Amino acid sequence: MKPVILVTNDDGVYSPGLRLLFEAVSDLGETIVVVPETPKSSTGMGLTLHKPLRAYRINYHGMPMYLLNGTPSDIIHFAHRKIVSEIDLVVSGVNIGDNTSIQVILSSGTVAAAVQAWLLGIPSIAFSVAIESGDELEHNILLAETIKKISRTLVEKVLKEGLIDADFLNVNFPSEITEKTRVVTAKPARLRFIENIEERVDPRGKKYYWIYGVPAPLEKNSDTYELLVQKNIVITPIKFEISCPLSAQLARLENILNNVLRSVIYSKKR
Amino acid sequence: MKPVILVTNDDGVYSPGLRLLFEAVSDLGETIVVVPETPKSSTGMGLTLHKPLRAYRINYHGMPMYLLNGTPSDIIHFAHRKIVSEIDLVVSGVNIGDNTSIQVILSSGTVAAAVQAWLLGIPSIAFSVAIESGDELEHNILLAETIKKISRTLVEKVLKEGLIDADFLNVNFPSEITEKTRVVTAKPARLRFIENIEERVDPRGKKYYWIYGVPAPLEKNSDTYELLVQKNIVITPIKFEISCPLSAQLARLENILNNVLRSVIYSKKR
Repeated sequence: MKPVILVTNDDGVYSPGLRLLFEAVSDLGETIVVVPETPKSSTGMGLTLHKPLRAYRINYHGMPMYLLNGTPSDIIHFAHRKIVSEIDLVVSGVNIGDNTSIQVILSSGTVAAAVQAWLLGIPSIAFSVAIESGDELEHNILLAETIKKISRTLVEKVLKEGLIDADFLNVNFPSEITEKTRVVTAKPARLRFIENIEERVDPRGKKYYWIYGVPAPLEKNSDTYELLVQKNIVITPIKFEISCPLSAQLARLENILNNVLRSVIYSKKR
Repeated sequence: MKPVILVTNDDGVYSPGLRLLFEAVSDLGETIVVVPETPKSSTGMGLTLHKPLRAYRINYHGMPMYLLNGTPSDIIHFAHRKIVSEIDLVVSGVNIGDNTSIQVILSSGTVAAAVQAWLLGIPSIAFSVAIESGDELEHNILLAETIKKISRTLVEKVLKEGLIDADFLNVNFPSEITEKTRVVTAKPARLRFIENIEERVDPRGKKYYWIYGVPAPLEKNSDTYELLVQKNIVITPIKFEISCPLSAQLARLENILNNVLRSVIYSKKR
């Protein structure tokens, strides 16, 4: 039986990154494309709980797909519940702009789709490329070809072997491929951006604000460093080991708080 | 000098949880309240990058505050850049509804504010209570009083000692306080909800969909279990140890992909 591959992204139907990923994997299985109706960058793991979702089927230049008016996380649940019950692999991307560092991994829509898949027990891979505009993919044939071949090989391997020791893979491609480019693994940096806010005044004299990020200082040997400085293709196997370090400080706190709790209960009983 | 405490939440200005937290800590320092203009549950770590932000100053029943038309993550950056440059502690909540499990921690707006604070190097605590409606806080005096006293003690301690071995604290209160209630620490479950999708038909005959979560099977000794079954007050010190396990499988993959990369570069050069 052919494996079922769900292809999604957070940039929407017109992204050349979506087409690249679709073309890379479409003959490796039964490929289903579901994307947000409008771009959903930086939506993190958000779910749409407070309003209804609508889905449309379209065919965009030979790529049949579903559009959903929701987030990448909504898409994973919608595909899993309403399109096909068994999904063998989720691939998300190729995102225009890198997704490196814990900060970005936690807020990226592209990565969120991979995280949601992991939560459902489905292997997943997020792909991103460190370019500013999708046009660059159309003009840099070596870059596009590399992304296609590398993604395809990775998908073939994961379909065959699964992900042994990671929740999911986060893959980032550099802005250009040179003779020096290598495929490496690297752990996520903590910060990718320092967020600033620019204050402006609208035509009616009222203040408004824009949030924007400037690059944070580079952390040596991190995913960001390997990608932006070394110009390597970076694979980061992500494992959410959200730990619960039980320090002496915490044990003391627990004690103090239990005493507070006893005194509140006692005072209310009297 | 008085410490600066930023109070925020994701339910907005009318939440009794916000007032409770404000009253618990307001005399412990210079307290600044900044909340989203409209409720932002389940917005995850999303940032508003594609549209301008607006801020308003209001005074709601003796509680001076800023309203921002953005997400909890936006609020942390806005407060840090535009209201006060030094923040000693961020407290977020008290959320109506628990925030337990990795799944929910990664998508909760309340927790996202604490994560953003950590990324900026500011100690932070997220507070939530396992009730369905804010009204319950107004009718259950023992619960409200317990939340107030426990939050206050925790904030005093963290202001004095900092967080030694955690990125931030995630605190959940049970739906009611009994003689058996204790303060405990517990690690996060993986799943809190199984997401379902209900299909409906609108008055014009078109399909629409609602996502909703039903409780996932309980994981023993987890934060969810301690909270919902044992009815304890649960403190989870969160440390994002997103690791990068370099397995033999991955080393093999790296090798294979490097060979693919060489062959793409070579074929394009000829």
